Amino acid sequence: MATAVSIDIGGTQAKLALVDEQGAISARRHLDTRACRKLEEFVAGLFAEVEFLLREAGRTSVDLEGIGIGAPSCNEFEGTIARAANLPFDAPYPIRHEVESRFRLPTRLIKDSSAAALGEHLFGGARDMTHFILLTLGTGLGSGVMVDGRIVRGGTGLASEFGHSLVDPAGRECGCGRRGCLETYVSATGIVRTAFALMAEMKADSPLRRRPFAEMTAEHLFEAARAGDPISREAFARTGRTLGIKITDLIVALEPQAIFLSGGLATSGDLLLAPTLAAVRQHELPLLKNKVQILQSELGAHDAALLGAAAPILHQQKVTLS
Amino acid sequence: MATAVSIDIGGTQAKLALVDEQGAISARRHLDTRACRKLEEFVAGLFAEVEFLLREAGRTSVDLEGIGIGAPSCNEFEGTIARAANLPFDAPYPIRHEVESRFRLPTRLIKDSSAAALGEHLFGGARDMTHFILLTLGTGLGSGVMVDGRIVRGGTGLASEFGHSLVDPAGRECGCGRRGCLETYVSATGIVRTAFALMAEMKADSPLRRRPFAEMTAEHLFEAARAGDPISREAFARTGRTLGIKITDLIVALEPQAIFLSGGLATSGDLLLAPTLAAVRQHELPLLKNKVQILQSELGAHDAALLGAAAPILHQQKVTLS
Repeated sequence: MATAVSIDIGGTQAKLALVDEQGAISARRHLDTRACRKLEEFVAGLFAEVEFLLREAGRTSVDLEGIGIGAPSCNEFEGTIARAANLPFDAPYPIRHEVESRFRLPTRLIKDSSAAALGEHLFGGARDMTHFILLTLGTGLGSGVMVDGRIVRGGTGLASEFGHSLVDPAGRECGCGRRGCLETYVSATGIVRTAFALMAEMKADSPLRRRPFAEMTAEHLFEAARAGDPISREAFARTGRTLGIKITDLIVALEPQAIFLSGGLATSGDLLLAPTLAAVRQHELPLLKNKVQILQSELGAHDAALLGAAAPILHQQKVTLS
Repeated sequence: MATAVSIDIGGTQAKLALVDEQGAISARRHLDTRACRKLEEFVAGLFAEVEFLLREAGRTSVDLEGIGIGAPSCNEFEGTIARAANLPFDAPYPIRHEVESRFRLPTRLIKDSSAAALGEHLFGGARDMTHFILLTLGTGLGSGVMVDGRIVRGGTGLASEFGHSLVDPAGRECGCGRRGCLETYVSATGIVRTAFALMAEMKADSPLRRRPFAEMTAEHLFEAARAGDPISREAFARTGRTLGIKITDLIVALEPQAIFLSGGLATSGDLLLAPTLAAVRQHELPLLKNKVQILQSELGAHDAALLGAAAPILHQQKVTLS
């Protein structure tokens, strides 16, 4: 069966796998991105992992079609990665060309959030949809947009940065250099910031009060919220409300059939989904009342981008990149 | 030359014209929408005006290809108009079918804001662009979005309601039943509301203080601002700032090549454009710094939608409706 090497480059890990055209994943590998302090280290490590997968593919005699790469802050048109937070790239690195010449296989580069949307479209809850948006709530907030069966890339491939839409121009400092971007509120790091603001605002006792900021994660909030901690629960409620209100802007702009929530924070289930949905229904345009579904990704937190990154190689006929 | 009857239905007037494939307009007609209190009156008046244009076309022997209709709050997929503010429609009226059967000519219905975007694409400043957004600042705020050469219509034809994106969920009452929609701040009516809020906030003398709310128009503010009135100038400054900040959300979502401002309020030139542009440049994502142009429509305040409404008839090969 037609198979590709799929690479999902993230701030913590680069995940690699053999992915076949039906979405089955075999022979996973990974590389610890944070351990690579220089570009050369990262590239050498990545190439070694690709070598392993190529040998594995040869051993199992799969029909290898090429290499698909999903990455944050990449330029799909030029095939480069640059200025990604947590990645050791300063100047644009021509990753598509370098991988293609090294391994002599067709190589495609796509934004990680667009890859995740393609994964959801091919193998997840958006299988029958041609208009939808997928939001990935991880360290930041990524977005992939499909309009009429095509992934929206923008004039020069830089569209779909919904995490940097503005909640409050005078709000929280963002890694992008501005203030008040949505991902400073709605993401695994954003909800931790909210929890600390709530520890200042509320007076309830909470297990959160015994853990420093630098050691707090969204998982701690999730566990505390499930145990009934009022501050954690309020943090999820506010995060959902902020997300829901911004989602109504996406709805009036694009009228998708559905908006999917993916990524670690989205797996917290109703803790986040319920207040998000409530805010959408409260604030959406009456003309569009209840028309747009708010759904959890069917692909779990981690594999949508890995599945979708291979799509431009394995599903060229179905994947129209606008 | 191939010619169509073009109809632009608005809350004040329905404008009709013969439009040829090169964008030349002849034989204009209009119907006072506000004088029609019932659907039957409006339809009878509209049909009479179309009859006039058909006779005119016959007299000048143009090759009549069909009838294109642009209208607010219409359902393009079903060919109906419903619930449009200021129009005498309650239940959905199947205008496409009714016009087509009555005049036995191919008839197309398109949202007025999408028609305006098509007009700008075919005959205005977006001639060489495939990714752009046109915002029409009239009584409300309309939006037309082109992504990769195709007008965005949404899952059921209800996309592009950017005027109802939220500035402040607790803000001004909107005709849609909610609070804080962009068009309650940025439109001909929104800027008047801002001027009245400023008369409360500021203490400067102003000619505005001698005119009641019910008689104030954006034109009065424009004239006063040009004469140096500080309240009118501040109203334009705040309107531009509010618009500019929301435009940065459109930019991160879609990365258009340009955003065009059209409609009566946009013809105020630098009074509005300068603060809008300043706010965009101040608040836009560093990654997209200066990439997206903010431009005035090249088609003037009134003819973009009329030119574009005929496009689905006259330019089928160029106009891909997604």
